[in-house]
Amino acid sequence: MSCEVSLPEAKKVAIFGGTHGNEMSGVTLVNLWLKNRAEIRRSGVEVQPFITNPRAVEKCTRYIDIDLNRAFTPENLSKREAEDHPYEIKRALEINRIFGPKGSSDAYDVIFDLHNTTSNMGCTLILESSQDHLNLQMVHYIKQAVAPMTCSVLVNEHPFLQYSTSRSVAKHPIGLEVGPQPQGVLRSNIFQSMRLILRHALDFIELFNGGMEFPPCTVDVYQVTERVDYPRDTNGNITAMVHPNLQDCDWEPLNPGDPMFLTFDGRTVEYKGGNTVYPTFINEAAYYEKQQAFVITKRGTLIARQIKVSKM
Amino acid sequence: MSCEVSLPEAKKVAIFGGTHGNEMSGVTLVNLWLKNRAEIRRSGVEVQPFITNPRAVEKCTRYIDIDLNRAFTPENLSKREAEDHPYEIKRALEINRIFGPKGSSDAYDVIFDLHNTTSNMGCTLILESSQDHLNLQMVHYIKQAVAPMTCSVLVNEHPFLQYSTSRSVAKHPIGLEVGPQPQGVLRSNIFQSMRLILRHALDFIELFNGGMEFPPCTVDVYQVTERVDYPRDTNGNITAMVHPNLQDCDWEPLNPGDPMFLTFDGRTVEYKGGNTVYPTFINEAAYYEKQQAFVITKRGTLIARQIKVSKM
Repeated sequence: MSCEVSLPEAKKVAIFGGTHGNEMSGVTLVNLWLKNRAEIRRSGVEVQPFITNPRAVEKCTRYIDIDLNRAFTPENLSKREAEDHPYEIKRALEINRIFGPKGSSDAYDVIFDLHNTTSNMGCTLILESSQDHLNLQMVHYIKQAVAPMTCSVLVNEHPFLQYSTSRSVAKHPIGLEVGPQPQGVLRSNIFQSMRLILRHALDFIELFNGGMEFPPCTVDVYQVTERVDYPRDTNGNITAMVHPNLQDCDWEPLNPGDPMFLTFDGRTVEYKGGNTVYPTFINEAAYYEKQQAFVITKRGTLIARQIKVSKM
Repeated sequence: MSCEVSLPEAKKVAIFGGTHGNEMSGVTLVNLWLKNRAEIRRSGVEVQPFITNPRAVEKCTRYIDIDLNRAFTPENLSKREAEDHPYEIKRALEINRIFGPKGSSDAYDVIFDLHNTTSNMGCTLILESSQDHLNLQMVHYIKQAVAPMTCSVLVNEHPFLQYSTSRSVAKHPIGLEVGPQPQGVLRSNIFQSMRLILRHALDFIELFNGGMEFPPCTVDVYQVTERVDYPRDTNGNITAMVHPNLQDCDWEPLNPGDPMFLTFDGRTVEYKGGNTVYPTFINEAAYYEKQQAFVITKRGTLIARQIKVSKM
């Protein structure tokens, strides 16, 4: 049995910044690259930097009407572009027209979507499928290229917790989340890490398109299994904070009985689950409104098949 | 020569939270105390917790129309409340009516204004006058009470860089700035530090009102001398980031020749001043729009005279 996968060239690549207008590393990098593409130019690839939510960038806010990175649902994308819609729905329709249509053979091959988080997640590549062998090979390549710096891989293909991202328009969507960085702030260390990862990602695509074969490999990942909300009162106001023992401990094991929250009156709320889990997106600013204090992940290992380009 | 100052009791005290609606420690503490005042009750003092910018708190944004903490200018406060104004000007007029009028004998005695910063400033008490002996004695008391935790004192009475704060309505305005904390995030360590400082501040007022004399003392402070902006291009866009050697180094000496910024093309911009200075508010999210990467301070020592209450 041959496990090699032949895949078409990744000719059309986009780099999205400003999907959330206050996540400054991606906004700044994309704006730099729009002025000077030398750094992102690779032979045999069209690389398109793009500010996805320019009005939110201008106001330095996450979004204007609704979260653009939840807006690429089949329902929204079936609306008519000419009609009056919330700003981000109009924008989703435009983006789908330019870089999609989502799910079609005309769609862009790869979209990198650049994000920052207030959580202490370091560099994280986010995949939407455990079966996307191009992306799995790419994250394997990036992880090796940036070592000894750590680059975690988060897979979100949970049936209820997955959401309709901007990048999901592409055949191979890949999110890059780097933190900790406050909203509206540009930190040099976060900026440099994001820039480095993008360079390696584009190198990988150039090598792949150029005919390099990538042998089968394994990729250690964290898979989203659950969302945990803050304790709240009957009015929906939070009554506790992330416990100091959990704060900033993204990717570290959370065991049954470990402290999870500290209530305003000083009581500790423990984790009651049955198994050791790996929390991430801990105390992300934008997720208070989404009723999420952190997500729980389980560790796993995915197999990336050997890939090579299928020249037409 | 007697240097003792007799001062009237501080009977009317307010605690402002949410002057900036996305600075979560103050918002959360004030909301807690509005529900249950036991923790802030002191004999002989009326302590009023108050959310200054409720619409900004609701939207979890710094402000709606203009920065409330710059709005208490003589010009604004002379406007008529009934007329149509930007939201924060209306709010400033209301606050001035309730807690002022600013500069009058009817004004509140002390207003604590609770803030967070994305800068690594730790706990900082902000004074608007180097001659306010009640406040100087109070910050001296707090510094001793929280030791070995550090509590810095920033004095902003610079003729051009001082601004018209919400707390300036009171006879003795005092800002409390605690960081680092991203906008929209509540961190337990920052929350607990702010809570602790407020408790000691209220204890001080109770002791003072009760007749305790506070002997003369000195207070080490940082005095604002200059504002430093990011390098920018002709369109006003920043072209550099705070240098990694300066990032998070609030209150640490910056010497002539030390790195200050790192440009996007990798060049280091050095500090060219003639003397060692002490930067703070380094890379505060809200100050990009105010053309400020950090403020420069000089170290100084202020003398607090002996104070005692003057009973009527």
